[in-house]
Amino acid sequence: MFLRNCWYLAAWSDEIAAGDMLGRQIAGAFLLFVRDADGALAALPDQCPHRLVPLSMGKCASGIVECAYHGLRFAASGHCVTNPHGPVTSALHLRPWPCVERHSAVWVWLGEADADDGAIPDLGFIDRVPEEARVYGRLHSTADYRLMTDNIMDLTHADYLHASSLGGGINTRARAEAVQQGDGVTITWTASNDRLAPLHAGFLDSEDGRGDFLNIVTWMAPAVMRQRIAFALPGALESAPLDSMTCHVMTPETAGTTHYFFCHTSDGVTADPAIAPQVHDALVAAFAGEDAPMLEAQTRRIAGRDFWSLKPALLPSDKGAVMVRRLLDRMMAEENKGLEQ
Amino acid sequence: MFLRNCWYLAAWSDEIAAGDMLGRQIAGAFLLFVRDADGALAALPDQCPHRLVPLSMGKCASGIVECAYHGLRFAASGHCVTNPHGPVTSALHLRPWPCVERHSAVWVWLGEADADDGAIPDLGFIDRVPEEARVYGRLHSTADYRLMTDNIMDLTHADYLHASSLGGGINTRARAEAVQQGDGVTITWTASNDRLAPLHAGFLDSEDGRGDFLNIVTWMAPAVMRQRIAFALPGALESAPLDSMTCHVMTPETAGTTHYFFCHTSDGVTADPAIAPQVHDALVAAFAGEDAPMLEAQTRRIAGRDFWSLKPALLPSDKGAVMVRRLLDRMMAEENKGLEQ
Amino acid sequence: MFLRNCWYLAAWSDEIAAGDMLGRQIAGAFLLFVRDADGALAALPDQCPHRLVPLSMGKCASGIVECAYHGLRFAASGHCVTNPHGPVTSALHLRPWPCVERHSAVWVWLGEADADDGAIPDLGFIDRVPEEARVYGRLHSTADYRLMTDNIMDLTHADYLHASSLGGGINTRARAEAVQQGDGVTITWTASNDRLAPLHAGFLDSEDGRGDFLNIVTWMAPAVMRQRIAFALPGALESAPLDSMTCHVMTPETAGTTHYFFCHTSDGVTADPAIAPQVHDALVAAFAGEDAPMLEAQTRRIAGRDFWSLKPALLPSDKGAVMVRRLLDRMMAEENKGLEQ
Repeated sequence: MFLRNCWYLAAWSDEIAAGDMLGRQIAGAFLLFVRDADGALAALPDQCPHRLVPLSMGKCASGIVECAYHGLRFAASGHCVTNPHGPVTSALHLRPWPCVERHSAVWVWLGEADADDGAIPDLGFIDRVPEEARVYGRLHSTADYRLMTDNIMDLTHADYLHASSLGGGINTRARAEAVQQGDGVTITWTASNDRLAPLHAGFLDSEDGRGDFLNIVTWMAPAVMRQRIAFALPGALESAPLDSMTCHVMTPETAGTTHYFFCHTSDGVTADPAIAPQVHDALVAAFAGEDAPMLEAQTRRIAGRDFWSLKPALLPSDKGAVMVRRLLDRMMAEENKGLEQ
Repeated sequence: MFLRNCWYLAAWSDEIAAGDMLGRQIAGAFLLFVRDADGALAALPDQCPHRLVPLSMGKCASGIVECAYHGLRFAASGHCVTNPHGPVTSALHLRPWPCVERHSAVWVWLGEADADDGAIPDLGFIDRVPEEARVYGRLHSTADYRLMTDNIMDLTHADYLHASSLGGGINTRARAEAVQQGDGVTITWTASNDRLAPLHAGFLDSEDGRGDFLNIVTWMAPAVMRQRIAFALPGALESAPLDSMTCHVMTPETAGTTHYFFCHTSDGVTADPAIAPQVHDALVAAFAGEDAPMLEAQTRRIAGRDFWSLKPALLPSDKGAVMVRRLLDRMMAEENKGLEQ
Repeated sequence: MFLRNCWYLAAWSDEIAAGDMLGRQIAGAFLLFVRDADGALAALPDQCPHRLVPLSMGKCASGIVECAYHGLRFAASGHCVTNPHGPVTSALHLRPWPCVERHSAVWVWLGEADADDGAIPDLGFIDRVPEEARVYGRLHSTADYRLMTDNIMDLTHADYLHASSLGGGINTRARAEAVQQGDGVTITWTASNDRLAPLHAGFLDSEDGRGDFLNIVTWMAPAVMRQRIAFALPGALESAPLDSMTCHVMTPETAGTTHYFFCHTSDGVTADPAIAPQVHDALVAAFAGEDAPMLEAQTRRIAGRDFWSLKPALLPSDKGAVMVRRLLDRMMAEENKGLEQ
């Protein structure tokens, strides 16, 4: 169901203020993210070892968490620092998970293997843009995270599901190439002197709406996708492209629900950060109004059954999505094999 | 749970306009009813073979269904007629179910055996009445369809559950006779010079509310019941009856939910179709306000367990309902035996 | 899950008027409490033996229950007294459960062993107070009844969960002693010249809020707790205490839902019954606003798993709660052993 030995993007850094905490379920585990007064972050189980209640129902001051039920207190290290009812024993300590902040996001490692922060997916494009020019957020969905990954890995759906904005046919007409590189998968769509999607055509000073188009999506385990879109008047893709970078991170909450973290940056928003809220709302509207109902209906129809057991008819456009599924399945199988030994 | 080799009433014909479609779950199966521009109707799986999403979320123009997700198009025949992403392969065709329109209703066959449209339950009484004099509709219920059948097959419940309209005791006092004829069951209630139900007495010019009464219900698999009610002043049942025909069709949606299709015709409504809306509202109110709460509570109490395993105490008035349950159980057992071989 | 050979408090006596009935689920069983015209009470299955529907959907007049579905009638003895559809057979009789009224409450015995009304938990304190001075009620909770018992058996939680009223630390600082006496468990908290809880301090004419404190809770199977709280100015606990008695009765409805019956009496309310409604509202607010959210979250987190299998870290303050759980587990194990033989 879930890969364990990997980094999950669990929150945007600014969701947790200094000294405060945030409870969130990630890949089935109830986690508590605690930031101490100095800003250092830790990931703890969101469960009091005493009575198993959510620590996130309590309070947090200067990074010290107090359980609302019987007043036990825990430091961000996981150590129980106060037990009003007796001695602090080792049974009262919480075992922290490896947790790293990078690219303005909180990453947590849920596996048994050693956590290597070199394996954190590269979302460095975020760091290269001033904060006010980042269009980011989190959306919650009652869809399977793997279906949400499939959705990004086959962007031909934009021609139909987002016909009036990102569609019109260019995604389907574009030449697509999918390749696996190590533990990642990259799919590239290219089109030359073609009718651009309505939203893109609107940005260019073109009478016939034609242009060159480039769309590259790189998937990294478990469900992190980094996307570059560039388009320009015919022949100008090298010299004068309108360029954007977006990440789509599908962090599973449970088997059938997902946290969707997105961050969009573009030359346009960097030049005029005042438009960031409009771009944010447009991205949210596209997902909530167009993708989410479809992905949630698909999740209900599959109803927890194995996707392949339902024998879906594969199309050439599924190549990237299938490559990702096969790779993820293999990673999970290897992990389970390791656990059995 | 469900009989497969039988005709299910899935919709009233006028629920699907020319060129349009209707998604509906029948006996656990997700079906899509598509009417082409010429009016011909087909029953397809309501699931795109590509990504398993409901086709009913898409659009339908002139009987061509377009999947909202990736734009595949299907004709009413089930053939994929457009695949924007590659060749049309046989894996993309939808396998239609046998589907026939008769008695202003849509019938679908979900079984493996050959569909014989001679086996469609006879609701010819509908055809013999002008459209404006038919009082019909569909109600949704969270009750087991077999409990809904039991309810019609033992109309003594009207004396208690519908005491102020169809009750008062005559159904219980009436002489009842249940017989199995081939694959059907007929139960007949008769009473002479008895106190009629309040609703019936109101129609007659009688001072003491007495009259003769005839009520015949015929069950046909899987859950189609045709009912004739006639009543008259004492001795006038042959010469001057007030007569009505009604069908009660309990089409299972899932194991615990049911589409209840009804169509009521009577001499009274035929003579004055303007009263049809009032009659409609009275029928809906009786079911929704009196039957449904009881049948839904009964379904919750049984909670998916086998009815007989709960050892209900049978009464003489259950004779028709029990005959039907035994027959349906036998039909399903035979069908399952066939599947095992 | 549930002890069977024990008395469950199922209702307050005044919930069922003379001649009337009340349907309520107790320990998974659907029960119907029927009071005849003379005031005698009986506990019957809330299920018609004919069609398995809830009898509580019908009507009750002078203690005769009529099923709303087909009109069968039952006396409080469980005997079917009217069958409009045929002879009254033994299959139509309902088997009553032993049912006793005591301490203004209705007690029912769900076990196979002989019911001994000497085993009804002693809540005699209720009888010793005039009716208008009893502060009582019933609250419904989606929490496991055993967690609700744990909550009362470890009142140190009040220091944190009810900090502004019953808390402040005295419960945790008090000396606690738990003892098992026969089939009961008693835990006693005592403190001398200590800072009283804010609510208690407010009742005393003390400048520094200090006083003596006594809190005794006695648990009786299956989940009946009787609590005495007394406090006074330092040294005056014997001579001039403010005294109260409260019962907390956690009657399971289902595996994860509970009826919480409480009755509070005190010298203060007896002296001035006009304040009873305010005390009632304060008790309801404390449970609904502070205990219930915690216990319901705890129930969701445990999610039906065995409590011990989750290896909770026990504290000295759990002693009473653990003693009760071990005793109840042993009682259930013995009962199940009896059933197997």
